[in-house]
Amino acid sequence: MAAPDFSSWRARADAALERALPDPATSPQRLHAAMRHGVLNGGKRMRPLLVYATGAALGAPDAELDAAAAAVELVHCYSLVHDDLPAMDDDDLRRGQPTVHVAFDEATAILAGDALQTLAFETLAAAPQPPERRVAMLAELARASGVAGMCGGQALDIDATGRVIAPEQLERLHALKTGALLRCAVRLGALAGNATPEQSTQLDRYADALGLAFQIRDDLLDIEGDAATLGKTAGKDAAQDKATFPALIGIDASRARLETLAATMRQALDALDADTGALAALARQVVERTH
Amino acid sequence: MAAPDFSSWRARADAALERALPDPATSPQRLHAAMRHGVLNGGKRMRPLLVYATGAALGAPDAELDAAAAAVELVHCYSLVHDDLPAMDDDDLRRGQPTVHVAFDEATAILAGDALQTLAFETLAAAPQPPERRVAMLAELARASGVAGMCGGQALDIDATGRVIAPEQLERLHALKTGALLRCAVRLGALAGNATPEQSTQLDRYADALGLAFQIRDDLLDIEGDAATLGKTAGKDAAQDKATFPALIGIDASRARLETLAATMRQALDALDADTGALAALARQVVERTH
Repeated sequence: MAAPDFSSWRARADAALERALPDPATSPQRLHAAMRHGVLNGGKRMRPLLVYATGAALGAPDAELDAAAAAVELVHCYSLVHDDLPAMDDDDLRRGQPTVHVAFDEATAILAGDALQTLAFETLAAAPQPPERRVAMLAELARASGVAGMCGGQALDIDATGRVIAPEQLERLHALKTGALLRCAVRLGALAGNATPEQSTQLDRYADALGLAFQIRDDLLDIEGDAATLGKTAGKDAAQDKATFPALIGIDASRARLETLAATMRQALDALDADTGALAALARQVVERTH
Repeated sequence: MAAPDFSSWRARADAALERALPDPATSPQRLHAAMRHGVLNGGKRMRPLLVYATGAALGAPDAELDAAAAAVELVHCYSLVHDDLPAMDDDDLRRGQPTVHVAFDEATAILAGDALQTLAFETLAAAPQPPERRVAMLAELARASGVAGMCGGQALDIDATGRVIAPEQLERLHALKTGALLRCAVRLGALAGNATPEQSTQLDRYADALGLAFQIRDDLLDIEGDAATLGKTAGKDAAQDKATFPALIGIDASRARLETLAATMRQALDALDADTGALAALARQVVERTH
């Protein structure tokens, strides 16, 4: 099949985010500007792409996926705004731009992150799915974002910094910190596309492998990359004494693990009775990406 | 009628919050402990009381109001955890206890606030109302918490600090910062209790007056109170150069305004075809409270 047109889905996600975000001309302007700075920054939109690709595989029209795509990206963006704060990762640069607390101030960055999280739920509550499925999507987003998902993983990450942890613990950390929201993106697409239980099982398998692959690739890039390609500070993990896969199991074993995960994704997609070209292309992108 | 038993509703709200909060014995323990510290602290539970009192006026059983009561309080508590941060109000003490970032650390306090907001939506998504009404309740909570509500009001408050603003601007600030969530509590009770449009109009009138009265009373208490009664630092507003009603229109005019708002609340409740004893008692409590 032809290569899927990710740039058009990316543009679609950006348009949905633009519609969801508050007007920068209205009060309180500074908060609105900070929220927009934290979102409209040329992000890769991996989570929206997963929503669109999953929905498309199941035959859902793009227009029915916009709210879910925007909502999951808003959660991702809020978490980045807060992660970058001085009390957290203390990052000045993200995607080559000053982070929100640098471009504005700390109080505004805290508040902008808070408001972006709220906006995610507000946006999803207005999705075009019937109420019963919409409630399931809202519950899914909340579960994936909270203590049993992203926030819990972030807490484990803080706990693990400066300590030696086992590879299984690192895997759990990432399954929560980044994996849960990537899996949520796939599940939102599955809910929007009315997946069968069997399809959902395979999609979960795909998403779990993709989440872990994403993190291992990220860790490898942090070692291999340079600041110009990454748009963020390279070598930061080691400098901050963060637990990473290459540090724990070595670079070669990390690369081998990536290959295994790629195979798992291919098998899961093969087992799906659907047009999975876009999901397969996203899997390849995650495994092979250079920034 | 007999005085409503607020202490039993308060205990009910505490029990609902306890059920919603993550187990302190499970990992990540520190995050879970910080979340519980920010919530289970002997708060007045004004927002849950409004949910129960509104629902009760409309004949809804308490058990159908627990999720909404817990959800709106979780949003309130997350906002306090973040407001207390050094980059925001920099408060060390809340209800006589160390604030979350003092008892734990800043990163954990940011994360605990984030996770409490998520938990609010997760809790409400599991409310017993049918999906259509549940979606309306989720949308209401998101609207009231976000840029057009609490977060927007907080941003206006930051903008106003150290500047002279008009009384109308201060009123808008508080209508958003504290009013929106109090109104939301009433609306959640109204949605759970299937209020008619006419009942909703009167309940909104009541809630808007209550929100403003709550803030004016708060401002007066900050001047009149002492730290022991308040459980927080008195005179803090003036020390931080915050805009307050007494500072802008004077103490006597602030007290007169409180009386007018009390009359508005009585009229709105009189116009309601329902048993409004508990709502009337809450109105009196807001106007007369000493801490």
